[in-house]
Amino acid sequence: MSENNIKNNNEAADILSSINSPDDLRKLSSDKLPQLCEDIRKFLISSLSTNPGHFASSMGAVELTVALHYVFNTPYDRIVWDVGHQAYGHKLLTGRRDAFDTNRKLGGLCGFPTPEESEYDTFTAGHASNSISAALGMAVASELQGESPRRNVVAVIGDASISGGLAFEGINNAANTPNNLLIILNDNDMSIDRNVGSLNSYLAHLSTSKSYNSIRYNLYKFLRRLGLISERKRGFIMRFNNSLKSLLSRQQNIFEGLNIRYFGPFDGHDIHRIVRVLRDIKDMQGPRILHLRTVKGKGYAPAEDDPATWHAPGKFDPDTGELLGGNSDKPQPLKYQDVFGHTMVELASKNDKIVGVTAAMPSGTSMSIMQEAYPDRVFDVGISEGHAVTFSGGLAKDGLRPYCAIYSSFLQRAYDHIIHDVAIQKLPVTFCIDRAGIVGEDGVTHHGAFDLSYLRCIPNLTVSAPSDERTLRNLLYTAQCDNHGPIAIRYPRGKGHTIEWQTPMEQIEIGRGQKLADGNDIAILSLGPIANAVKQAIERAKADGISVAHYDMIFLKPIDQDILREVAMKGCPIITIEDGTITGGLGSAVAEWMNDNNFKPVIKRMGIPDRFIHHGSVAQLHHICEIDHEAIYNAILKLKHDK
Amino acid sequence: MSENNIKNNNEAADILSSINSPDDLRKLSSDKLPQLCEDIRKFLISSLSTNPGHFASSMGAVELTVALHYVFNTPYDRIVWDVGHQAYGHKLLTGRRDAFDTNRKLGGLCGFPTPEESEYDTFTAGHASNSISAALGMAVASELQGESPRRNVVAVIGDASISGGLAFEGINNAANTPNNLLIILNDNDMSIDRNVGSLNSYLAHLSTSKSYNSIRYNLYKFLRRLGLISERKRGFIMRFNNSLKSLLSRQQNIFEGLNIRYFGPFDGHDIHRIVRVLRDIKDMQGPRILHLRTVKGKGYAPAEDDPATWHAPGKFDPDTGELLGGNSDKPQPLKYQDVFGHTMVELASKNDKIVGVTAAMPSGTSMSIMQEAYPDRVFDVGISEGHAVTFSGGLAKDGLRPYCAIYSSFLQRAYDHIIHDVAIQKLPVTFCIDRAGIVGEDGVTHHGAFDLSYLRCIPNLTVSAPSDERTLRNLLYTAQCDNHGPIAIRYPRGKGHTIEWQTPMEQIEIGRGQKLADGNDIAILSLGPIANAVKQAIERAKADGISVAHYDMIFLKPIDQDILREVAMKGCPIITIEDGTITGGLGSAVAEWMNDNNFKPVIKRMGIPDRFIHHGSVAQLHHICEIDHEAIYNAILKLKHDK
Repeated sequence: MSENNIKNNNEAADILSSINSPDDLRKLSSDKLPQLCEDIRKFLISSLSTNPGHFASSMGAVELTVALHYVFNTPYDRIVWDVGHQAYGHKLLTGRRDAFDTNRKLGGLCGFPTPEESEYDTFTAGHASNSISAALGMAVASELQGESPRRNVVAVIGDASISGGLAFEGINNAANTPNNLLIILNDNDMSIDRNVGSLNSYLAHLSTSKSYNSIRYNLYKFLRRLGLISERKRGFIMRFNNSLKSLLSRQQNIFEGLNIRYFGPFDGHDIHRIVRVLRDIKDMQGPRILHLRTVKGKGYAPAEDDPATWHAPGKFDPDTGELLGGNSDKPQPLKYQDVFGHTMVELASKNDKIVGVTAAMPSGTSMSIMQEAYPDRVFDVGISEGHAVTFSGGLAKDGLRPYCAIYSSFLQRAYDHIIHDVAIQKLPVTFCIDRAGIVGEDGVTHHGAFDLSYLRCIPNLTVSAPSDERTLRNLLYTAQCDNHGPIAIRYPRGKGHTIEWQTPMEQIEIGRGQKLADGNDIAILSLGPIANAVKQAIERAKADGISVAHYDMIFLKPIDQDILREVAMKGCPIITIEDGTITGGLGSAVAEWMNDNNFKPVIKRMGIPDRFIHHGSVAQLHHICEIDHEAIYNAILKLKHDK
Repeated sequence: MSENNIKNNNEAADILSSINSPDDLRKLSSDKLPQLCEDIRKFLISSLSTNPGHFASSMGAVELTVALHYVFNTPYDRIVWDVGHQAYGHKLLTGRRDAFDTNRKLGGLCGFPTPEESEYDTFTAGHASNSISAALGMAVASELQGESPRRNVVAVIGDASISGGLAFEGINNAANTPNNLLIILNDNDMSIDRNVGSLNSYLAHLSTSKSYNSIRYNLYKFLRRLGLISERKRGFIMRFNNSLKSLLSRQQNIFEGLNIRYFGPFDGHDIHRIVRVLRDIKDMQGPRILHLRTVKGKGYAPAEDDPATWHAPGKFDPDTGELLGGNSDKPQPLKYQDVFGHTMVELASKNDKIVGVTAAMPSGTSMSIMQEAYPDRVFDVGISEGHAVTFSGGLAKDGLRPYCAIYSSFLQRAYDHIIHDVAIQKLPVTFCIDRAGIVGEDGVTHHGAFDLSYLRCIPNLTVSAPSDERTLRNLLYTAQCDNHGPIAIRYPRGKGHTIEWQTPMEQIEIGRGQKLADGNDIAILSLGPIANAVKQAIERAKADGISVAHYDMIFLKPIDQDILREVAMKGCPIITIEDGTITGGLGSAVAEWMNDNNFKPVIKRMGIPDRFIHHGSVAQLHHICEIDHEAIYNAILKLKHDK
């Protein structure tokens, strides 16, 4: 395939280019579907090779996507995708093919399904495991409002996402509420990293024992054709199924244990099969699960061979599969993630109480570096952020020093767990909050915008943000010295600015910031690596003859009151800046403190504005949020002028 | 039993009075255990009849509690209780018998297990479903640190708690990590309200098919006695077990589907049986679940007959079971909860889009009132706050108007769901946040201290708090007028002050507060029913000749800028007061606004201080937090004096 994909992509003869909506798709004869799947794959390979995005998941879901829109009457029928990685094909079929080259770019398509963009995108789909609950809500809403014709609601969930507690809660409730929800389990045995958890090994095992399910399904079809299946007889059929299972399966089926009818596993790349099965089970009453086995990266050999790398591979050569990641000859700063990972290995080598915990993101967080060095001391708990935190609480309670690395926006899932299972008991858990602040292309669901605010109000919790890689190392080091209770360390996605990051680690005094520059006209208090933008702005202001002091707070809580007093005594205007929401973070803490201590300086608070921020590059979004060096420079000028 | 319980309670001859620690218990011969259980029940009946607390759960867990401390070497071995309702017996056996009359009182015992109080209380246990994750952490910590002798870790979880997503995440991970965790499922088929969800009907069903499990267990014991069970042979035994199950059980066993060995169900009130079983399975390798069937309220007929009422019955006559709830002849204000419940019925009768959602708390929230009137339009999703919110998002997405009633501190479990599944999409979900602010006797895990802060930073979300019952009604009414996106309405536990609450409802302008009193010396901005304390303080100040303006903000977000401007222009000192944390709520919002708009008034911010608050009466705790009328009065005097 790879030789021709770029050429074919623009050939008028391909089928994909004639599909402007699912209505067009539904007019095709079914023998055209394999070609359409082929077209979609070619399109994805071509497009994503130059405009990076999530690759392997969508490649694996092509047949499923085509079959869903072919069989169901979308958008009247609802498809709820669980995490949008898999939904690129869906975007191509629902009127967004020509816009696809704007995917994840500022003002362009969102990388995840989003109702703001299309009526075919039924629900926000950036965080895992929410599809069943949301779809159940839609199914119940349709039922209660007596929608006619009956509206079908389909949740499409991956085998990794289904291990999240929310998915379980959804399934548990789906079985108990009158509804016709169809859950499709897209089982590629692979989340971003390899799946963990027993549910997953259960799924893997289940899939190997095909005989029983195939027999049962064929039996069902047979009985249905004979007109022997009706609601009245369903009880009998179900019992019959169960007895059959007792004979055929060594394995218990969780889903039917929960009163949800189970079908599968089927080959998720056999488009004709999927279409037939969907048609067969579409109009059944009651909740159902259809289990499809798919291959992540299907149809592109390099991705099939190494789906983890190809989850989001960046640019690549479509013909050779060579990754075109910007290799440079001159030394580059490491990602904050890698500084974290290597530092964890150093710390773990000296303190055997240190363990690592992550929730399905060992490579994303670079906890994988420690995992490789200390496989027995790193726990990847799968997509279950709440458990990751409470489990860390248990580890800490009995003597270990857990470092729990979770993305900022996903940590929202573990908010109560931080309060109830860690902070109340002052347990020494270190929260390594990755992807804090604006994350860029992943957009609205992924920005780590709220952590500073939602953490600052928690008693007993230290909240910190290093301005550079060395401070990150020092904070990680400090977290395991003494027991000062839980500490949160938040840092951004991607590369910093420091080449020589691997300097000896030093303990930092908790609650102590540092002065980076002296000045008298204006004082800037910054938190986190946004200090670099402040430095740039200060350089520029210096050329204008404006003298600006700069303090790197390092700690949001406890905040450095000596710095605040020093700045207040200067009597000059103050700028606070943070890569986090303007509501409740550093700026608020400074305003509160000045108020409570009877200082009345002019304070210009800069941060992410109080609205949801969409996608674009980090630089573009910082500019839009007015927290880039230019905005800081302008704020300096204005304060100087007003003064 | 009831005739004698009070007398017996203090007789030296009883066994309980000789147990000052589990060491004493472990010296008893096992034939004494039934008498001890009897003693504990008598003690609980006597004590709780005069000093109210959680009754029925602990009565049901007496034998289990005795057996655990009898068989396990506590506190070296760890017992992790899931929700402490069931742990009163545990407190009596672990050195806190004589202090038990201080239970839930200021400075006395906490109503839940808490490590601050005793080394036998291994983990905070106020919010459901955390025990497995925490215990798994402890089991892994013990394993990694090579504790010798082997430390046993036991999580005790109820059948309602196990439906929470966190418990599922814990089980899922327990099966996958090398550990010797023992999970005890205390299955009384009853949470605070009746259980919902399929996992629960599954458990109920499982328990009725005793034959298989009894046979299997006896077989295991038999083989063990013959020395035929060893780790080497375990695989064979397990396979044999599975085949046996195929023949005996129509039911699939979820737990073994997840690779956790399952034992039970057994009678949880047969102390000798439990002791034997615990001894048998204590030293097995790998994670295990022991399923016990218990009766909530066991041993006290009125509680067995009506366990929901007897969950936390208040004072009662131990002989007759008569509840001694303060019945008064003169009209009393309703609880806020009942005002909510009755108002929901009124609203639902006029707007058929309105539905109710709650998470295992229909009676606690009084959603039960609507449930009775509209059973098909109220969804009790069980202990699964995250699902409750995401499900509400789905309902709202397809046209309904869900009112989702959850306690403030439990809503912390659904933080990401509010952001990701509701706020981003501006879905019209109304969050009815019950138990907001200080809740009193339930203490540190239950105070609704953080909601104002953690909600204020969420874009698109309206955050409100009525100062009285009529405003609550008006807010509930307003929430379904127009579509202004999601709205949070927070109100406290218990009774307000208004007798005539059922007045016609009116739409309130979103973001508009009201002036309650005019004055020039000082201006007070309050949020919520704490307005009543403000009124008292103002009355008192008036007698001193101090003129105080009072504004009921009603909305924290959007905040009423007209009021803020009016107050700022007055130029007088300002007091902000809220029944919520001082960090990030109303006081912060006012300080931010004044700062951002270049006003520099003196602002005294009053709220719950930035530390965890323990238990006591609401009045006592408001006093300690310095947010009662006296503290407000003192603040007025001080500001007047400083001015």
